[in-house]
Amino acid sequence: MATDTAAPDAGSTRGYVQPTIDVAALRRLLDGRYAEVRDLVRSNLAEHASVLEEAETLSTDDYRDRVRDLVVTMASTGQTGMGFPEAYGGGGDLGASIAAFETLAYGDLSVLVKVGVQFGLFGGAILQLGTQRHHDQYLADLISGRVMGCFAMTEVGHGSNVQALGTVATYDPDREEFVLTTPDPSARKDWIGNAARHAELAVVFAQLEVGGEAHGVHALVVPLRRDGEVLDGITIEDDGLKMGLNGVDNGRIGFDHVRVPRENLLDQFAQVTPDGRYESPIENANRRFFTMLGTLVQGRVCVGGAGINAAKVALAIAITYADRRRQFNATSEEQEELLLDYGLHQRRLLPLLARTYALHFAQEVVALELHEVFTQTDAPEEGENEHRRRELESLAAGTKALGTWHATRTIQECREACGGQGYRAVNRFAALKADTDVFTTFEGDNHVLLQLVAKGLLTDYAGEFEEMDQFGMVRFVAGLAVDTVIERTSVHKLLERVRDVLPGGDEWDQEAGLLDPDYQRMMLRFREEHMLSGVARRLKRGIDGGMDPGEVFSRVQDHVIAAAGAHVERQVLDAFVDKVATLEDGDAKVALNLLCDLFALSTIEADRAWFMEHGRMSAQRSKAISREVNDLCRKLRPLARDLVDAFGVPPEMLRSPELVG
Amino acid sequence: MATDTAAPDAGSTRGYVQPTIDVAALRRLLDGRYAEVRDLVRSNLAEHASVLEEAETLSTDDYRDRVRDLVVTMASTGQTGMGFPEAYGGGGDLGASIAAFETLAYGDLSVLVKVGVQFGLFGGAILQLGTQRHHDQYLADLISGRVMGCFAMTEVGHGSNVQALGTVATYDPDREEFVLTTPDPSARKDWIGNAARHAELAVVFAQLEVGGEAHGVHALVVPLRRDGEVLDGITIEDDGLKMGLNGVDNGRIGFDHVRVPRENLLDQFAQVTPDGRYESPIENANRRFFTMLGTLVQGRVCVGGAGINAAKVALAIAITYADRRRQFNATSEEQEELLLDYGLHQRRLLPLLARTYALHFAQEVVALELHEVFTQTDAPEEGENEHRRRELESLAAGTKALGTWHATRTIQECREACGGQGYRAVNRFAALKADTDVFTTFEGDNHVLLQLVAKGLLTDYAGEFEEMDQFGMVRFVAGLAVDTVIERTSVHKLLERVRDVLPGGDEWDQEAGLLDPDYQRMMLRFREEHMLSGVARRLKRGIDGGMDPGEVFSRVQDHVIAAAGAHVERQVLDAFVDKVATLEDGDAKVALNLLCDLFALSTIEADRAWFMEHGRMSAQRSKAISREVNDLCRKLRPLARDLVDAFGVPPEMLRSPELVG
Repeated sequence: MATDTAAPDAGSTRGYVQPTIDVAALRRLLDGRYAEVRDLVRSNLAEHASVLEEAETLSTDDYRDRVRDLVVTMASTGQTGMGFPEAYGGGGDLGASIAAFETLAYGDLSVLVKVGVQFGLFGGAILQLGTQRHHDQYLADLISGRVMGCFAMTEVGHGSNVQALGTVATYDPDREEFVLTTPDPSARKDWIGNAARHAELAVVFAQLEVGGEAHGVHALVVPLRRDGEVLDGITIEDDGLKMGLNGVDNGRIGFDHVRVPRENLLDQFAQVTPDGRYESPIENANRRFFTMLGTLVQGRVCVGGAGINAAKVALAIAITYADRRRQFNATSEEQEELLLDYGLHQRRLLPLLARTYALHFAQEVVALELHEVFTQTDAPEEGENEHRRRELESLAAGTKALGTWHATRTIQECREACGGQGYRAVNRFAALKADTDVFTTFEGDNHVLLQLVAKGLLTDYAGEFEEMDQFGMVRFVAGLAVDTVIERTSVHKLLERVRDVLPGGDEWDQEAGLLDPDYQRMMLRFREEHMLSGVARRLKRGIDGGMDPGEVFSRVQDHVIAAAGAHVERQVLDAFVDKVATLEDGDAKVALNLLCDLFALSTIEADRAWFMEHGRMSAQRSKAISREVNDLCRKLRPLARDLVDAFGVPPEMLRSPELVG
Repeated sequence: MATDTAAPDAGSTRGYVQPTIDVAALRRLLDGRYAEVRDLVRSNLAEHASVLEEAETLSTDDYRDRVRDLVVTMASTGQTGMGFPEAYGGGGDLGASIAAFETLAYGDLSVLVKVGVQFGLFGGAILQLGTQRHHDQYLADLISGRVMGCFAMTEVGHGSNVQALGTVATYDPDREEFVLTTPDPSARKDWIGNAARHAELAVVFAQLEVGGEAHGVHALVVPLRRDGEVLDGITIEDDGLKMGLNGVDNGRIGFDHVRVPRENLLDQFAQVTPDGRYESPIENANRRFFTMLGTLVQGRVCVGGAGINAAKVALAIAITYADRRRQFNATSEEQEELLLDYGLHQRRLLPLLARTYALHFAQEVVALELHEVFTQTDAPEEGENEHRRRELESLAAGTKALGTWHATRTIQECREACGGQGYRAVNRFAALKADTDVFTTFEGDNHVLLQLVAKGLLTDYAGEFEEMDQFGMVRFVAGLAVDTVIERTSVHKLLERVRDVLPGGDEWDQEAGLLDPDYQRMMLRFREEHMLSGVARRLKRGIDGGMDPGEVFSRVQDHVIAAAGAHVERQVLDAFVDKVATLEDGDAKVALNLLCDLFALSTIEADRAWFMEHGRMSAQRSKAISREVNDLCRKLRPLARDLVDAFGVPPEMLRSPELVG
C-alpha cells in the first residue's frame, strides 16, 4: 500500500492476455450443484420484490405480518422445507436447503431471518433433538408454516455461555409433567424471534431437574399461544425497535410454573421415564450438552453463507456504480474519470471482491460437508463420525465468523464508496448495513466462535473437548508437555503438510514466485502453525508460572483469536485454490486465478507485519507483495463488472435506480 | 497482538502506583475554556431527551417538525447563535459556537445536523460570503430560527468536485436580475438539508455568467418558499428515507429560469455592477473560488468534533456495560468474569478510548485556531494570514477525516462489544451508527479531504495551491527537482524538526524508551517525512517516464492518502503530548500519560509493518511494542470507567437502561 516506493511503472504485464468472462458460465460455476434451487429463490425474490420498499413504508406490525405471510407463501413453493424429510412434505436434501437460504440473503433480510427461525432453528430443533413422536406431531405443520414456532435458548443474562442458562424445568412424576420456571429476570428468554407476535410453540432450553438431580440443559416443546392469546403463566414482552430486522418479532419470554406433558421433552439424547428416571446414551452431562448443540450447526452454516451473499449485493451495487460514475478530470479535459479507474477505488473494492469469491468457495465446502455428515449417518455419538462432526462444527464456526465480519466490512466500504448516494434508503445500503450488523454476534458471537475453533485445534478435539470451557482448555493444554501438544494436536498434522509442500531449503519463501499457490498456502500454513504452537507455549508457561487459568487466558486471548483466524483463512485459501485447480484451462480459470492471487496476497499483505516479525518475509519482499496486489487490482479492473454480474443478484434486489439503473 | 510470544508474565509494573481519577476535575480539563457553554448544551439536551425516543415513534414528517421546533427552542437559549455578531443577537464568540456544536453531538444527531445546516452552513454563508446588506436583512431572523434556510451546493452529478457544478446564474442587466437554471437533471441540487420541508431561503452555488463570460462558482440568496408554498420555477423533491438523520428534511432542488435581484449575490469576494460589470479583488477565478470555500471551513471543524463526541457516547455505554456484565466462569466457580477483565475486550475498547482522548485534544487545537484566525482579522486575502488560513483548512480537513472514521469504527466496535443488547434501538447504537455513517462522506469525502491535506504539504500551500486540482498537483510536483520539492515543501521543515529532537546516532529508535514521548513523536515524524518525499519522488518519476498525470495520480493515490493520514496522526499525537505537558504533576497527569502512550504505541503498532519495511523497527522491537500496548491496557482497565465518566455525557443521552442503568 503506502509502502510502494517504486515508480508507478507499467508493472508485470508481460505476456498477459486479458481474459473475457462468460458471465452465464461463471454464474453456473458459482451456483454449483444447486443451480435450480437458487433460481427458484431468485424468482421468488423478484416476484415479491415490493417487500424491500414495504420494509420502509409499513408500520412495524404490518411489516412483521407481511414478512410472516411472505415466508408462508415461499414455503408453499417448497423453497424453505428442502432440508426436512420428504415424508412430512420436505425436500429431503439438506444441501439444497442451505443453498436456498444463502440465496435468500439477496433479498429482504427480515424474511431471511424469519425463515431461519422457523425452519432452521425451530424446525431444526424438532427434527434433530426430537424423535418420531415429535416429528409426526409437528413437522408437517411447521414445514407448511401453518404452525409458527420459536427457538428459546438465549437469556437476558446468558448469550454466549449457554450452559449457564437459568430457566429450570423440574419433573413432577405425580402428574408426569415438566414445570418450567424463570427464577429471576436475568433468566428471561431474550431476542427470541417469532415470540413477540407469531409463535404458537417454542422449543425452550432449560436446566432439567429430575428427582432433585440436575442434568444440565435440555430442550422441551412449550405452547406459547392459542388462537393468538398468550397462555397462562407465560409473559411475553416485545424486544421493541431494533437497529434492523424489524420484520422479525423478537421478544422476551418468562415462565411462571408452566406445565407441559412429559412427552414434550425432545428426547433424542435423553429420556425421562414416567416414574422419573433420567436416562441417556451419553453419560457425561457436558458431552451430552455439546452433542445436542452440535446438531444445530446448520444455523451457523446458514448465517455464514447469508453474510457472504449480502456482501455480494453490496459489491454488485458499488462496483456497477464505480464503473458508471465520473468525478474530477484526469486524463482528458472533456470527460471526468470513472471512479473505478482510480487506484484507491480499486484498492478499496477489488480485494473485497476477491475475498468474497474465496469465502464463497469455502462456504461451498462447509455446506457440502454439512450435507454429507448429516445425510450419511444417524449415529453422531460414534467415534470417527463424532470427530468429523467436531471438525465440521469448527469449520462452520470459523467460516461464520469470517463470513459475517466480511459482510460488515464490505457493506460499509461499499456504502462509503458510493458517497452520499450510499446513504439513501432506496440504494439498499441502509437495510443491508442495519440488518446484517447482528450477524457478527448472533448464532454465536464471532470471538467466542473463534475461541471454539482454537480449542478444537489445541486439543485435537480430544475426548474431553466438549466438556471444556476456555479455562478447562487452558488447564488441558498446560497439563501436557509443549512437545506433546504439538504432537497430539492438529498443529502436528499441519507441520507435516507444510513439510510436504516445501520446495526445500530455508530460503524457499524468499525465492518462490509470489503467484505460486504453493508459496501462498505455505505462508498461511506457517503462520497458523507458528501461532498455534505459540499459544500452547504461552498457556503452559503461564500455568507453570503459577498464574490463575483465568488470568492466563485473559492475557493470551488475542493470540488465541488470531491463531484461530489464521487457521480459518488458510482453510479459505485452500478451498479457493482447490476449486480453481478443478477448472479446465480457459478464460474463467485465468480470471479466478487472478482473484485467488489477489485474495492470497492481500491476506498476506494485511498481516505482513507478523511475517516480518517472524522472519518469514523481508522488507523488500513485503513491498513486492504490495506492488503485486496493485498490479492484480489493475488487471481485475476491466473484469470487475462481469465478476459481480456472475453473482446473479436479481436486478430487483439491487434497487438503487440511480446507481445501477 | 498475536505477535506476543512471550509468557504472559507480570509485565513492567515496577514501581507503578495506580492513580485515582478526580472525575469532576478531569471533566473540567476536557471541557476547557467553554465549560459553561458545554453545560448549557448538556442541560438543554437533558431537558429535551424525549426526542431520542420520538425519533423512533413519530412519523417522518412529525419527527422532522419536532426537530425543527427543538432547534428553534434551543436557539432561544442562545446556544446555537454563539458564532454570530452580537449586533444581530449572536454571541460574538466563534469558539463558543464550536464547543456548543460539539456537545450537541451527545444527543439526537438530526438535531445536530439541522443546527449545522441552519446556523453553520446557511448562516455561515450569509455571514462570510455576504456583506452588510445581507447581514442586516437576514442574520437576526436566521439566528432566532424565524427564517429557515438551506445551503445548496452539492448536485446530483457533483459532490466532491464543486468547481464543476452545473447550475447556472446568468446576469440580465436589463432587469438587474440573475436568472438561475438547472441545465440538466445531473445539475439538480441534492442532499440539501432543510429543503424538503422547512426552508424559505437557500444560498445557491452556481456558475456565474455575466455578459456572456463565465466567472466560476458564486453564491446567491434564492427564496424557495413563501407561506409554505414552493415558488414558481422551483421544483423540490424529497430525498426520502435515509439510513439515518431522518429528522432532517433533505431534498433535491431544480431551477427553471428563476429570477432574483442583483443584490442577492453574496458579494464579499465579487460584485456585479447594475450595468453588468464583474468585479473582484481576487483576480484569479480558481483562487477566488477557493477563498470563498475557505470561509466555510467551520463546517468541517464542527463535523470532526461531532464525530469525536459521538464516539464518546458509544464508549461510555460499552465501557460501563463491560464493567458490569459477567460472562463465563474464569477465576472463580461462583462468579462469572466481568467482560472488561478479558484481555481481548480491553484490546478492543481501550485503544479506541485512548484515540478518542487524543482526537479530543487535537480538535481543541483546531477549534482554537479557527477561532483565532476568524476573529483576529477580516482580510483573508493577504499573504501571511492567507497561508495560515490554508494551513487551518488542511488541519480541519485532516481532523475531520480522522475524527469521523474514528467515530464509525468506534461505534461499530462498541456495538459489537455489547453483543445482542447493542442491537436494540433503546441502547442507542442503532441511531449512533446510522446517523453518523454519513459523517465520513459529507462536508467533504474523507479521501478527498486527505488528498487536500497532501496537496498542501507537497506544495507548501504555494501561490498556485488553490488553483490546482489533483492532476495540477501532480504536474506541479513533477515540475520540480525532487530535492527542490523536499526543500520547498513542508517536508523540509519537518525534517529539521526531526533532526532537532533526535538524540543522535543511527540507533536512537532502537534504544529509546518506548514510553519516551520524543521517541513516539519521532517515529510518527519519520513516517510522515518518508511517505511525503516518497510520494514526491513517485509523482516525478511517473511524469518523467512519460506517463499521463491521471494515470500517475491513480497509481500513487493510496500512497498520497497514507502520507496525509500519517501527517494528521502526527499532529494528533503532538496535540496530546503538548496538552499533557501543560498539566501539573499528579494523578490526572499519570492517567493521561497512560492514554497518550497507548495512543502513540497502538498507532505505531498498527503501522508496524511500514516501520519494519523502512528499517525503523526491528522485529524484536515491534513485539515489545505489542507487549507494552497490552500492559497499558491492563493499567488503564481500572481507570476506564472514570475516564468515560469524565466525558460528561448526560445520563439521559445514554438511555440503555439495561446496559448502564
